[in-house]
Amino acid sequence: MRHAISVLLQNEVGALTRMTGLFSTRGYNIDSLNVAPTNDPSVSRVTLVISGSDWAIAQLNAQLAKLVDVVNIHDMTLGPHFERELVILKLKLATGGFAGVLSLAKRFGAEILDDAQNSCTIQLTGKLGEIDAFIEEASQIGTLSAVARSGSVAVSRGEVALSTYSRDHRLTG
Amino acid sequence: MRHAISVLLQNEVGALTRMTGLFSTRGYNIDSLNVAPTNDPSVSRVTLVISGSDWAIAQLNAQLAKLVDVVNIHDMTLGPHFERELVILKLKLATGGFAGVLSLAKRFGAEILDDAQNSCTIQLTGKLGEIDAFIEEASQIGTLSAVARSGSVAVSRGEVALSTYSRDHRLTG
Repeated sequence: MRHAISVLLQNEVGALTRMTGLFSTRGYNIDSLNVAPTNDPSVSRVTLVISGSDWAIAQLNAQLAKLVDVVNIHDMTLGPHFERELVILKLKLATGGFAGVLSLAKRFGAEILDDAQNSCTIQLTGKLGEIDAFIEEASQIGTLSAVARSGSVAVSRGEVALSTYSRDHRLTG
Repeated sequence: MRHAISVLLQNEVGALTRMTGLFSTRGYNIDSLNVAPTNDPSVSRVTLVISGSDWAIAQLNAQLAKLVDVVNIHDMTLGPHFERELVILKLKLATGGFAGVLSLAKRFGAEILDDAQNSCTIQLTGKLGEIDAFIEEASQIGTLSAVARSGSVAVSRGEVALSTYSRDHRLTG
């Protein structure tokens, strides 16, 4: 099963490497990951997506929680949550191909960032299935020369959720 | 100086850890990073943001290019490029605070995902300065209980750019 996991990580040199190392040591490939600052300068927030049995992922999360850099872990997929992803695509177009791009952008609510001669850059933020469908349809209009995806960004739905594992008062929401 | 670097990375267990390990070994903290699949199943695309002198970052990139997992590196900040970021915020609101959220969302073109009682989830995709300003203004309306940012997603502007370092025909766009 696919799991989207939020981790609050101490903003220290090497913290991300120690965290991803725990996955690779156990033979897990991370499907997507993003890490960026929060409003607390000492803490970064990670969203990572990984596939495995619920049992195996729970074990992994328990191991992660023991890392000194990990403040808090919450497996978003265990409860109601929002997931969104940003993608920027670059398409090489044949002559006349731009009409197809306009129609695609309109249908998905995507934004055209750049339309150089025979090349076009488009941005979309959406749910998981939408992003996959958008990339698939774009690849039928032109040749994808760049596919830059943010990976899933996730927060729990509704009131602030208590974390799955925590040794700190801070919450991952 | 701030550098946004795109890396095409072999989609192998441990590749991300080997890459981030190179930064931490040299004492560099990564400001933000995202990694996700591309249209080529064997290759993932990373956008990472790091600060350092132009000379030091060029040295780091040359080291990165020697890693067996690295297909291609392009320092986007060396030329014209697009950078966008996605953020999902969760705000705790005092009674009557929702009017401020509506006004904020309208001004920034943000999307309200959820407005539970006294809590609100908002999503915005924008340029770097916009995202920072949005988070700052949101923090004045309510209490931030979650700040989930994707980190910068970057592609070069215009026609496909040749990479800074490459040992492969694939381009990072």
